[in-house]
Amino acid sequence: MNQKFPSVLLENAVNELASLPGIGKKTALRLALYMLRRDVGYTENFATALVDLRRNVIYCKKCHNISDHEICSICSNPSRDHSILCVVENIKEVMVIENTGQFRGLYHVLGGIISPMDGIGPNDLHINSLVERVAEGDVKEVILALSTTMEGDTTNFFIYRKLSPYDVKISVIARGVSIGDEIEYADEVTLGRSIQNRTSFNDSIKI
Amino acid sequence: MNQKFPSVLLENAVNELASLPGIGKKTALRLALYMLRRDVGYTENFATALVDLRRNVIYCKKCHNISDHEICSICSNPSRDHSILCVVENIKEVMVIENTGQFRGLYHVLGGIISPMDGIGPNDLHINSLVERVAEGDVKEVILALSTTMEGDTTNFFIYRKLSPYDVKISVIARGVSIGDEIEYADEVTLGRSIQNRTSFNDSIKI
Repeated sequence: MNQKFPSVLLENAVNELASLPGIGKKTALRLALYMLRRDVGYTENFATALVDLRRNVIYCKKCHNISDHEICSICSNPSRDHSILCVVENIKEVMVIENTGQFRGLYHVLGGIISPMDGIGPNDLHINSLVERVAEGDVKEVILALSTTMEGDTTNFFIYRKLSPYDVKISVIARGVSIGDEIEYADEVTLGRSIQNRTSFNDSIKI
Repeated sequence: MNQKFPSVLLENAVNELASLPGIGKKTALRLALYMLRRDVGYTENFATALVDLRRNVIYCKKCHNISDHEICSICSNPSRDHSILCVVENIKEVMVIENTGQFRGLYHVLGGIISPMDGIGPNDLHINSLVERVAEGDVKEVILALSTTMEGDTTNFFIYRKLSPYDVKISVIARGVSIGDEIEYADEVTLGRSIQNRTSFNDSIKI
Protein backbone atom coordinates (compact mmCIF):
# COMPACT_ATOMS: atom_id res chain seq x y z
CA MET A 1 0.00 0.00 0.00
CA ASN A 2 1.76 3.12 -1.21
CA GLN A 3 -0.45 5.57 0.62
CA LYS A 4 -0.24 9.33 0.17
CA PHE A 5 -0.60 11.02 3.54
CA PRO A 6 -2.23 14.44 3.84
CA SER A 7 0.17 15.36 6.66
CA VAL A 8 3.79 14.58 7.50
CA LEU A 9 2.85 14.37 11.19
CA LEU A 10 0.29 11.68 10.40
CA GLU A 11 2.73 9.84 8.19
CA ASN A 12 5.39 9.80 10.94
CA ALA A 13 2.92 8.57 13.54
CA VAL A 14 1.64 5.83 11.22
CA ASN A 15 5.18 4.72 10.39
CA GLU A 16 6.10 4.52 14.07
CA LEU A 17 2.96 2.52 14.92
CA ALA A 18 3.55 0.22 11.95
CA SER A 19 7.09 -0.48 13.19
CA LEU A 20 5.60 -2.52 16.04
CA PRO A 21 5.49 -6.27 15.44
CA GLY A 22 2.13 -7.47 14.12
CA ILE A 23 0.86 -3.95 13.35
CA GLY A 24 0.42 -3.25 9.64
CA LYS A 25 -0.01 0.11 7.89
CA LYS A 26 -3.80 -0.15 7.88
CA THR A 27 -4.04 -0.86 11.60
CA ALA A 28 -1.45 1.86 12.29
CA LEU A 29 -3.58 4.42 10.43
CA ARG A 30 -6.67 3.31 12.35
CA LEU A 31 -4.81 3.74 15.65
CA ALA A 32 -3.43 7.16 14.69
CA LEU A 33 -6.92 8.39 13.72
CA TYR A 34 -8.26 6.98 16.99
CA MET A 35 -5.73 9.12 18.88
CA LEU A 36 -6.82 12.18 16.93
CA ARG A 37 -10.39 11.61 18.08
CA ARG A 38 -9.35 11.38 21.76
CA ASP A 39 -8.22 14.41 23.77
CA VAL A 40 -4.55 15.46 23.91
CA GLY A 41 -4.15 14.09 27.44
CA TYR A 42 -4.88 10.58 26.27
CA THR A 43 -1.98 10.50 23.81
CA GLU A 44 0.31 12.27 26.30
CA ASN A 45 -0.40 9.68 29.01
CA PHE A 46 0.02 6.91 26.46
CA ALA A 47 3.40 8.21 25.34
CA THR A 48 4.59 8.91 28.89
CA ALA A 49 3.77 5.39 30.08
CA LEU A 50 5.83 3.86 27.28
CA VAL A 51 8.83 6.17 27.70
CA ASP A 52 8.67 5.74 31.50
CA LEU A 53 8.76 1.99 31.10
CA ARG A 54 11.68 2.02 28.72
CA ARG A 55 13.72 4.64 30.60
CA ASN A 56 13.10 3.66 34.19
CA VAL A 57 12.68 -0.09 34.07
CA ILE A 58 14.88 -1.98 36.53
CA TYR A 59 15.88 -5.60 36.30
CA CYS A 60 16.14 -7.56 39.53
CA LYS A 61 19.83 -8.00 40.46
CA LYS A 62 19.20 -11.59 41.50
CA CYS A 63 16.83 -13.12 38.96
CA HIS A 64 16.94 -10.50 36.12
CA ASN A 65 13.15 -10.29 36.09
CA ILE A 66 11.65 -6.87 35.37
CA SER A 67 11.08 -5.01 38.63
CA ASP A 68 10.38 -1.68 40.29
CA HIS A 69 13.18 -2.23 42.81
CA GLU A 70 16.74 -3.57 42.83
CA ILE A 71 15.47 -6.89 44.17
CA CYS A 72 12.10 -7.94 42.72
CA SER A 73 9.02 -8.73 44.77
CA ILE A 74 9.44 -12.46 44.16
CA CYS A 75 13.10 -12.65 45.23
CA SER A 76 12.41 -10.50 48.30
CA ASN A 77 9.37 -12.51 49.40
CA PRO A 78 10.39 -14.51 52.52
CA SER A 79 7.39 -16.85 52.22
CA ARG A 80 8.63 -18.27 48.92
CA ASP A 81 10.92 -21.28 48.70
CA HIS A 82 14.42 -19.85 48.11
CA SER A 83 15.91 -23.31 47.58
CA ILE A 84 14.22 -23.87 44.18
CA LEU A 85 15.10 -21.87 41.05
CA CYS A 86 13.03 -22.05 37.89
CA VAL A 87 15.13 -21.08 34.85
CA VAL A 88 13.12 -19.35 32.11
CA GLU A 89 13.89 -17.65 28.84
CA ASN A 90 12.17 -14.31 29.37
CA ILE A 91 10.08 -12.11 31.63
CA LYS A 92 6.91 -13.32 29.95
CA GLU A 93 7.41 -16.90 31.08
CA VAL A 94 7.71 -15.70 34.69
CA MET A 95 4.28 -14.09 34.34
CA VAL A 96 2.81 -17.19 32.72
CA ILE A 97 4.16 -19.54 35.43
CA GLU A 98 3.12 -17.11 38.19
CA ASN A 99 -0.40 -17.19 36.78
CA THR A 100 -0.56 -20.97 37.16
CA GLY A 101 -0.16 -20.50 40.94
CA GLN A 102 1.71 -23.84 40.99
CA PHE A 103 5.22 -22.60 41.75
CA ARG A 104 6.39 -21.13 45.05
CA GLY A 105 10.13 -20.99 44.39
CA LEU A 106 12.24 -18.26 42.75
CA TYR A 107 13.10 -17.61 39.12
CA HIS A 108 16.15 -17.00 37.00
CA VAL A 109 15.55 -15.16 33.72
CA LEU A 110 18.18 -15.99 31.09
CA GLY A 111 17.15 -13.22 28.70
CA GLY A 112 17.03 -15.61 25.72
CA ILE A 113 18.30 -19.03 24.70
CA ILE A 114 21.47 -20.16 22.98
CA SER A 115 20.86 -19.70 19.27
CA PRO A 116 23.92 -19.69 16.99
CA MET A 117 21.67 -18.82 14.03
CA ASP A 118 20.73 -15.52 15.73
CA GLY A 119 24.25 -15.00 17.04
CA ILE A 120 23.22 -15.58 20.66
CA GLY A 121 25.88 -17.46 22.62
CA PRO A 122 26.05 -18.44 26.30
CA ASN A 123 27.83 -15.20 27.21
CA ASP A 124 24.87 -13.15 25.98
CA LEU A 125 22.65 -14.83 28.57
CA HIS A 126 22.51 -14.63 32.37
CA ILE A 127 24.08 -18.06 32.81
CA ASN A 128 27.13 -17.00 34.84
CA SER A 129 24.91 -15.32 37.42
CA LEU A 130 22.84 -18.52 37.61
CA VAL A 131 26.01 -20.49 38.38
CA GLU A 132 26.93 -17.88 41.04
CA ARG A 133 23.52 -18.22 42.69
CA VAL A 134 23.90 -22.00 42.79
CA ALA A 135 27.51 -21.72 44.02
CA GLU A 136 26.26 -19.82 47.09
CA GLY A 137 24.93 -23.19 48.26
CA ASP A 138 21.33 -22.37 49.26
CA VAL A 139 19.76 -23.69 46.07
CA LYS A 140 18.72 -27.36 46.24
CA GLU A 141 16.95 -27.70 42.88
CA VAL A 142 17.11 -25.96 39.48
CA ILE A 143 14.08 -26.51 37.24
CA LEU A 144 14.77 -25.88 33.55
CA ALA A 145 11.62 -24.48 31.93
CA LEU A 146 12.83 -23.54 28.44
CA SER A 147 11.17 -24.05 25.06
CA THR A 148 11.06 -27.61 23.69
CA THR A 149 13.10 -26.59 20.66
CA MET A 150 16.60 -27.52 19.59
CA GLU A 151 17.82 -24.19 21.01
CA GLY A 152 16.04 -24.91 24.28
CA ASP A 153 17.60 -28.37 24.49
CA THR A 154 21.06 -26.95 23.72
CA THR A 155 20.66 -24.34 26.45
CA ASN A 156 19.40 -26.98 28.91
CA PHE A 157 22.45 -29.11 28.20
CA PHE A 158 24.85 -26.17 28.51
CA ILE A 159 23.38 -25.19 31.90
CA TYR A 160 23.38 -28.82 33.00
CA ARG A 161 27.11 -29.06 32.33
CA LYS A 162 27.86 -25.73 34.01
CA LEU A 163 25.99 -26.78 37.15
CA SER A 164 27.33 -30.36 37.29
CA PRO A 165 30.19 -29.48 39.75
CA TYR A 166 27.61 -28.36 42.32
CA ASP A 167 25.43 -30.43 44.64
CA VAL A 168 22.10 -29.39 43.11
CA LYS A 169 19.24 -31.38 41.63
CA ILE A 170 18.50 -30.40 38.02
CA SER A 171 15.06 -31.16 36.61
CA VAL A 172 13.19 -30.33 33.43
CA ILE A 173 9.49 -29.47 33.28
CA ALA A 174 7.33 -32.38 32.11
CA ARG A 175 6.59 -32.68 28.40
CA GLY A 176 3.41 -34.35 27.29
CA VAL A 177 -0.04 -34.02 25.83
CA SER A 178 -1.75 -30.82 27.00
CA ILE A 179 -4.61 -31.16 29.42
CA GLY A 180 -7.84 -30.93 27.45
CA ASP A 181 -6.12 -32.03 24.23
CA GLU A 182 -7.36 -35.00 22.24
CA ILE A 183 -4.76 -37.76 21.80
CA GLU A 184 -5.78 -38.05 18.15
CA TYR A 185 -4.41 -34.59 17.38
CA ALA A 186 -1.21 -34.71 19.46
CA ASP A 187 2.01 -34.74 17.43
CA GLU A 188 4.02 -37.95 17.41
CA VAL A 189 7.09 -36.64 19.24
CA THR A 190 5.04 -35.19 22.08
CA LEU A 191 2.95 -38.33 22.32
CA GLY A 192 6.08 -40.53 22.30
CA ARG A 193 7.68 -38.45 25.07
CA SER A 194 4.37 -38.52 26.92
CA ILE A 195 4.27 -42.33 26.89
CA GLN A 196 7.94 -42.66 27.91
CA ASN A 197 7.47 -40.31 30.85
CA ARG A 198 4.17 -41.80 31.99
CA THR A 199 3.36 -41.28 35.67
CA SER A 200 1.63 -43.57 38.16
CA PHE A 201 -2.13 -43.12 37.90
CA ASN A 202 -2.20 -42.54 41.66
CA ASP A 203 0.13 -39.57 41.20
CA SER A 204 -1.79 -38.16 38.26
CA ILE A 205 -5.16 -37.99 40.03
CA LYS A 206 -3.67 -35.72 42.69
CA ILE A 207 -3.54 -32.89 40.14
CA MET B 1 -6.82 -12.54 32.19
CA ASN B 2 -6.06 -11.22 35.64
CA GLN B 3 -2.34 -10.96 35.22
CA LYS B 4 0.05 -10.07 38.02
CA PHE B 5 2.67 -7.68 36.72
CA PRO B 6 6.19 -7.73 38.13
CA SER B 7 6.45 -3.95 37.70
CA VAL B 8 4.03 -1.03 37.94
CA LEU B 9 5.79 0.62 34.99
CA LEU B 10 5.12 -2.45 32.86
CA GLU B 11 1.51 -2.61 34.04
CA ASN B 12 0.90 1.04 33.12
CA ALA B 13 2.46 0.61 29.68
CA VAL B 14 0.43 -2.54 29.01
CA ASN B 15 -2.79 -0.84 30.15
CA GLU B 16 -2.15 2.13 27.86
CA LEU B 17 -1.38 -0.10 24.88
CA ALA B 18 -4.45 -2.23 25.59
CA SER B 19 -6.63 0.91 25.60
CA LEU B 20 -6.15 1.13 21.83
CA PRO B 21 -8.99 -0.34 19.77
CA GLY B 22 -8.32 -3.92 18.67
CA ILE B 23 -5.32 -4.39 20.99
CA GLY B 24 -5.89 -6.91 23.77
CA LYS B 25 -3.87 -7.41 26.96
CA LYS B 26 -1.78 -10.20 25.44
CA THR B 27 -0.81 -8.16 22.39
CA ALA B 28 -0.17 -5.14 24.62
CA LEU B 29 2.27 -7.15 26.75
CA ARG B 30 4.02 -8.43 23.63
CA LEU B 31 4.40 -4.84 22.35
CA ALA B 32 5.68 -3.55 25.71
CA LEU B 33 8.28 -6.34 25.89
CA TYR B 34 9.26 -5.57 22.31
CA MET B 35 9.96 -1.97 23.31
CA LEU B 36 12.10 -3.15 26.21
CA ARG B 37 14.24 -5.12 23.77
CA ARG B 38 14.79 -2.07 21.51
CA ASP B 39 16.99 0.86 22.54
CA VAL B 40 15.62 3.86 24.44
CA GLY B 41 15.68 6.05 21.34
CA TYR B 42 13.17 3.81 19.59
CA THR B 43 10.50 4.28 22.25
CA GLU B 44 11.29 7.99 22.53
CA ASN B 45 10.86 8.55 18.79
CA PHE B 46 7.70 6.46 18.87
CA ALA B 47 6.21 8.50 21.69
CA THR B 48 7.27 11.83 20.19
CA ALA B 49 5.68 11.05 16.83
CA LEU B 50 2.34 10.30 18.47
CA VAL B 51 2.34 13.34 20.75
CA ASP B 52 3.50 15.57 17.88
CA LEU B 53 0.63 14.36 15.74
CA ARG B 54 -1.97 14.93 18.44
CA ARG B 55 -0.62 18.31 19.60
CA ASN B 56 0.35 19.89 16.32
CA VAL B 57 -2.12 18.50 13.84
CA ILE B 58 -3.90 21.14 11.75
CA TYR B 59 -7.17 20.73 9.95
CA CYS B 60 -7.58 22.46 6.61
CA LYS B 61 -9.76 25.57 7.03
CA LYS B 62 -11.58 24.81 3.80
CA CYS B 63 -12.17 21.05 3.67
CA HIS B 64 -11.37 20.02 7.30
CA ASN B 65 -8.98 17.37 6.08
CA ILE B 66 -5.90 16.76 8.20
CA SER B 67 -3.04 18.96 7.01
CA ASP B 68 0.35 20.45 7.78
CA HIS B 69 -0.81 23.93 6.73
CA GLU B 70 -3.90 26.12 7.17
CA ILE B 71 -5.02 25.16 3.67
CA CYS B 72 -4.28 21.55 2.75
CA SER B 73 -2.24 20.44 -0.25
CA ILE B 74 -5.39 19.32 -2.10
CA CYS B 75 -7.34 22.58 -1.62
CA SER B 76 -4.29 24.66 -2.55
CA ASN B 77 -3.49 22.65 -5.69
CA PRO B 78 -4.41 24.84 -8.70
CA SER B 79 -4.39 21.87 -11.08
CA ARG B 80 -7.34 20.21 -9.32
CA ASP B 81 -10.94 20.89 -10.29
CA HIS B 82 -12.23 23.40 -7.70
CA SER B 83 -15.80 23.15 -9.03
CA ILE B 84 -16.41 19.61 -7.71
CA LEU B 85 -16.61 18.76 -4.00
CA CYS B 86 -16.63 15.19 -2.71
CA VAL B 87 -18.31 14.99 0.71
CA VAL B 88 -16.85 12.26 2.95
CA GLU B 89 -17.27 11.17 6.52
CA ASN B 90 -13.66 11.19 7.68
CA ILE B 91 -10.02 11.78 6.81
CA LYS B 92 -9.58 8.10 6.02
CA GLU B 93 -12.04 8.21 3.13
CA VAL B 94 -10.07 11.09 1.59
CA MET B 95 -6.98 8.87 1.62
CA VAL B 96 -8.89 5.92 0.17
CA ILE B 97 -10.40 7.99 -2.65
CA GLU B 98 -7.06 9.69 -3.35
CA ASN B 99 -5.50 6.26 -3.70
CA THR B 100 -7.96 5.35 -6.46
CA GLY B 101 -6.51 8.19 -8.56
CA GLN B 102 -10.02 8.63 -10.05
CA PHE B 103 -10.98 11.96 -8.51
CA ARG B 104 -9.43 15.32 -9.38
CA GLY B 105 -11.82 17.61 -7.46
CA LEU B 106 -11.72 18.82 -3.86
CA TYR B 107 -13.06 17.24 -0.66
CA HIS B 108 -15.22 18.23 2.25
CA VAL B 109 -14.73 16.19 5.44
CA LEU B 110 -17.85 16.13 7.63
CA GLY B 111 -16.12 14.62 10.65
CA GLY B 112 -18.81 11.97 11.06
CA ILE B 113 -22.38 11.26 10.02
CA ILE B 114 -25.70 12.11 11.61
CA SER B 115 -26.34 9.40 14.18
CA PRO B 116 -28.98 10.11 16.83
CA MET B 117 -28.05 6.83 18.55
CA ASP B 118 -24.53 8.15 19.21
CA GLY B 119 -25.80 11.66 19.94
CA ILE B 120 -24.31 13.11 16.75
CA GLY B 121 -26.54 15.77 15.20
CA PRO B 122 -26.04 17.98 12.13
CA ASN B 123 -24.46 20.73 14.27
CA ASP B 124 -21.66 18.39 15.34
CA LEU B 125 -20.61 18.03 11.70
CA HIS B 126 -19.01 20.43 9.21
CA ILE B 127 -22.26 20.89 7.28
CA ASN B 128 -22.60 24.67 7.67
CA SER B 129 -19.14 25.22 6.23
CA LEU B 130 -20.12 23.00 3.28
CA VAL B 131 -23.15 25.20 2.64
CA GLU B 132 -20.90 28.28 2.86
CA ARG B 133 -18.49 26.83 0.31
CA VAL B 134 -21.37 26.13 -2.06
CA ALA B 135 -22.90 29.58 -1.41
CA GLU B 136 -19.70 31.19 -2.70
CA GLY B 137 -20.86 30.05 -6.13
CA ASP B 138 -17.77 28.36 -7.59
CA VAL B 139 -18.93 24.82 -6.86
CA LYS B 140 -20.85 23.16 -9.72
CA GLU B 141 -21.24 19.65 -8.30
CA VAL B 142 -21.32 18.05 -4.84
CA ILE B 143 -20.69 14.29 -4.76
CA LEU B 144 -21.98 12.58 -1.63
CA ALA B 145 -19.68 9.66 -0.77
CA LEU B 146 -20.98 8.53 2.62
CA SER B 147 -21.56 5.03 3.97
CA THR B 148 -24.54 3.08 2.57
CA THR B 149 -26.12 2.86 6.01
CA MET B 150 -29.28 4.42 7.41
CA GLU B 151 -27.11 7.12 9.02
CA GLY B 152 -25.39 7.77 5.70
CA ASP B 153 -28.73 8.05 3.91
CA THR B 154 -30.06 10.43 6.59
CA THR B 155 -26.98 12.62 6.28
CA ASN B 156 -27.22 12.56 2.48
CA PHE B 157 -30.82 13.72 2.68
CA PHE B 158 -30.05 16.44 5.23
CA ILE B 159 -27.26 17.85 3.06
CA TYR B 160 -29.45 17.56 -0.04
CA ARG B 161 -32.11 19.74 1.61
CA LYS B 162 -29.57 22.26 2.90
CA LEU B 163 -28.08 22.65 -0.58
CA SER B 164 -31.38 22.72 -2.49
CA PRO B 165 -31.59 26.58 -2.54
CA TYR B 166 -28.30 26.70 -4.48
CA ASP B 167 -27.63 26.08 -8.16
CA VAL B 168 -25.47 23.00 -7.66
CA LYS B 169 -25.69 19.47 -9.01
CA ILE B 170 -25.84 16.88 -6.19
CA SER B 171 -24.83 13.31 -6.97
CA VAL B 172 -24.25 10.15 -4.98
CA ILE B 173 -21.47 7.64 -5.65
CA ALA B 174 -22.67 4.53 -7.49
CA ARG B 175 -23.75 1.54 -5.42
CA GLY B 176 -23.43 -1.94 -6.86
CA VAL B 177 -21.65 -5.23 -6.93
CA SER B 178 -17.91 -4.81 -6.28
CA ILE B 179 -15.57 -5.38 -9.18
CA GLY B 180 -14.16 -8.88 -8.84
CA ASP B 181 -17.14 -10.04 -6.73
CA GLU B 182 -19.22 -13.04 -7.74
CA ILE B 183 -22.92 -12.24 -8.25
CA GLU B 184 -23.78 -15.40 -6.33
CA TYR B 185 -22.43 -13.93 -3.10
CA ALA B 186 -23.69 -10.35 -3.45
CA ASP B 187 -26.40 -9.39 -0.93
CA GLU B 188 -29.91 -8.87 -2.25
CA VAL B 189 -30.17 -5.16 -1.54
CA THR B 190 -26.89 -4.36 -3.29
CA LEU B 191 -27.80 -6.60 -6.21
CA GLY B 192 -31.25 -4.99 -6.47
CA ARG B 193 -29.74 -1.50 -6.44
CA SER B 194 -27.14 -2.67 -8.94
CA ILE B 195 -29.83 -3.82 -11.38
CA GLN B 196 -31.92 -0.65 -10.96
CA ASN B 197 -28.91 1.58 -11.61
CA ARG B 198 -27.59 -0.45 -14.53
CA THR B 199 -25.44 1.48 -16.99
CA SER B 200 -25.16 1.22 -20.75
CA PHE B 201 -22.66 -1.49 -21.66
CA ASN B 202 -20.87 1.01 -23.87
CA ASP B 203 -20.32 3.22 -20.80
CA SER B 204 -19.17 0.37 -18.60
CA ILE B 205 -16.39 -0.82 -20.90
CA LYS B 206 -14.74 2.61 -20.73
CA ILE B 207 -13.69 1.90 -17.14
